[in-house]
Amino acid sequence: MIDLKASFLSDSSRYVYSAIRESDDLVDELVRSGKKVVKLSSGDPALYFPTPKYVIEAYVDALKKGKTSYSRSQGVHELVDAIIERYKFRYDVNVRDEDILVTGGVAEGLTFLNSALINPNDTALILKPYYTQYPVAIRMFGGKFLEGKYDEANEWTIDLDAVKSAIRKSRVKAGAIKYILITNPNNPTGTVLSKKALEQVVELANEYRMLLISDEIYDEIIFRHEGFTSVAELAKGIPHVILNGASKAFDATGFRIGYMLVPENDRSSTELKRKLADYCRVRLSSNTPAQYAIAEAMSNRKEHDRAVSQMVASIEENVDSLMKLFDENPYLKTVRPGGAFYIFPRIDLRSMRFSNDREFVESLIREELIQTTRGSGFGAPNHFRVVALAPTDLMKDCAEKINSFCRKHTK
Amino acid sequence: MIDLKASFLSDSSRYVYSAIRESDDLVDELVRSGKKVVKLSSGDPALYFPTPKYVIEAYVDALKKGKTSYSRSQGVHELVDAIIERYKFRYDVNVRDEDILVTGGVAEGLTFLNSALINPNDTALILKPYYTQYPVAIRMFGGKFLEGKYDEANEWTIDLDAVKSAIRKSRVKAGAIKYILITNPNNPTGTVLSKKALEQVVELANEYRMLLISDEIYDEIIFRHEGFTSVAELAKGIPHVILNGASKAFDATGFRIGYMLVPENDRSSTELKRKLADYCRVRLSSNTPAQYAIAEAMSNRKEHDRAVSQMVASIEENVDSLMKLFDENPYLKTVRPGGAFYIFPRIDLRSMRFSNDREFVESLIREELIQTTRGSGFGAPNHFRVVALAPTDLMKDCAEKINSFCRKHTK
Repeated sequence: MIDLKASFLSDSSRYVYSAIRESDDLVDELVRSGKKVVKLSSGDPALYFPTPKYVIEAYVDALKKGKTSYSRSQGVHELVDAIIERYKFRYDVNVRDEDILVTGGVAEGLTFLNSALINPNDTALILKPYYTQYPVAIRMFGGKFLEGKYDEANEWTIDLDAVKSAIRKSRVKAGAIKYILITNPNNPTGTVLSKKALEQVVELANEYRMLLISDEIYDEIIFRHEGFTSVAELAKGIPHVILNGASKAFDATGFRIGYMLVPENDRSSTELKRKLADYCRVRLSSNTPAQYAIAEAMSNRKEHDRAVSQMVASIEENVDSLMKLFDENPYLKTVRPGGAFYIFPRIDLRSMRFSNDREFVESLIREELIQTTRGSGFGAPNHFRVVALAPTDLMKDCAEKINSFCRKHTK
Repeated sequence: MIDLKASFLSDSSRYVYSAIRESDDLVDELVRSGKKVVKLSSGDPALYFPTPKYVIEAYVDALKKGKTSYSRSQGVHELVDAIIERYKFRYDVNVRDEDILVTGGVAEGLTFLNSALINPNDTALILKPYYTQYPVAIRMFGGKFLEGKYDEANEWTIDLDAVKSAIRKSRVKAGAIKYILITNPNNPTGTVLSKKALEQVVELANEYRMLLISDEIYDEIIFRHEGFTSVAELAKGIPHVILNGASKAFDATGFRIGYMLVPENDRSSTELKRKLADYCRVRLSSNTPAQYAIAEAMSNRKEHDRAVSQMVASIEENVDSLMKLFDENPYLKTVRPGGAFYIFPRIDLRSMRFSNDREFVESLIREELIQTTRGSGFGAPNHFRVVALAPTDLMKDCAEKINSFCRKHTK
């Protein structure tokens, strides 16, 4: 046996880790040994809501028409046109061909963006709790991050003072923070940011000359009495990037189709979108037939609206049930989400026999065969994330099991 | 208009560029304006050979069975099992589940590998002419590369002395070159390396304690009188990585399914394969239904062998025709390829009115509506790469046009 070198792996690779998928191998093992594990860890609507038939038909049609070769690196024109139409229709925002980069999910977009922007020791600003890949993608390129936060005491809206204070306390010079990245609706909290909160973020980005990146992958999964505003509507004149894709609203996670929009035309935005196109070219193309399927999914608005509104109604029913049940549990405290499909309860660990949220989540898998994700993976210890996508009866059953699991493990 | 910063983009992003796709936008424009351009620039069999029907049917079947959610990050078990079987059958090599990482094409695998291995200023060793993404992927993570070379005067086999001399001349300490990356069969030359040449590389990797990476994406596209040996057969006991995928032999470029094998179990290899699994988890999964399609494509050996042998016969016929026509052209000099589907002629630019291969290739697009790739993109100026996948008559027609184009532009 030969060891190549003591420090064989790169320093940055230490940070490459997925809290969301860390228990997948354990669960896989349990499932292969015949156990039935309820997976409430993956933000994957297609696990429970079949991808709409008209989308599958468009996919099959593309395959049968021989759309199996590499395609235009930045996305096939049919999909690019559908994205242009979508932003015009939903947000009255004009984007053009050259503003759009189709990627293998938002995940690939994040890698490209960070590679294009981050020099070693550069700083970016993200807000806790954040999606697990954000810090990883910064670290992959030797970057660091400042942590702002969403305020749990204030329904997880942006804590603007905390963000400003993080900027001031850092020794980063004005203009040297590469970007601020927000998520709306948020993962893992499900918070939908108000127009006012977003306007403040736009102002902040402008003041500190940070690129504003808004991950809006859940933009169509919005509950009753909530209104959604896209950063694209507010950030006119300010360099910004919108991340979005087909996975959630189009219920097509396994297609791996995401996209980035860079709508502005200042010098920085223009440089960025051209460079991102180079990143797309280097990896040749996204899955080709899936792009045609999503072009149809977006263009057929009638079918899409029917599918997404049914899905959102079911999700909201689940959220209602879970909120009700978790509110009966004295060991959990949950801010009601306004969209997406996550519940993110705070766990009263001081009253329980677990030393941290990781133990809580792992025991929940082993004892109750329910897979969730620890809050510390999102930068928010003492929480856990439950994906509210399973059928309502199953969700209720899980919530009851979680409640009795909590009671069982109190000190 | 706001400029965020003079040095807005990262230093490493300067190197992110695709010579293969640099003229795609120009060609796209010509095509949209009604011109008919013959694309001989993309190594894409599916452009000319329809993906076999049994593979399309397996893809459709997976879609109709609802295989549209995220899947196991390292690859669905069905595909992983098919890969295990493939290596057992073709190479009598045993690999296990945990040695296999399914990726979005070899492109994604290269990004993961370089991120996992390369610290800023680390050195890797690649050989000219190389696939365009190799230097890009190293530079993306701040790495540098030594250039060994394949010897054109010796049928493009590895110039071992040049490689050793590159190592010696560098100031890199023994044991500090992270990896040596070879391509077999090669892109852009089509060279199939002999068993003896490969044994020398294995020995060299061992001597200098470099990880040995072998990109074998063309391993089934081998012409008559050539024998192919996989590094997996020879490198037992030596840390190595095999890159492969479905794009070429399985004629499924647009599916974006590749894989990496890390068959050894020394400490470095074990660390590496575990870390690569983390990279896979962070980006969730590859396209799910495409993985099931390729699992079937690999398992149905009878159908696959029929499809691939027909395709290879057609390619070889093209290569024969092109070699014959180009050999009649005094301005081109071409080493006969042993596999893959590329012809890589040297251009006698001193006799012509072009100052470099870039001008040659761009004029060929504008004047003859034939898209090829400049050799300088592969680290070999004064060459151009022709993809030999179009129907034979069309290929001959293009070769004749290229010949008269050369004559027309002589001094």
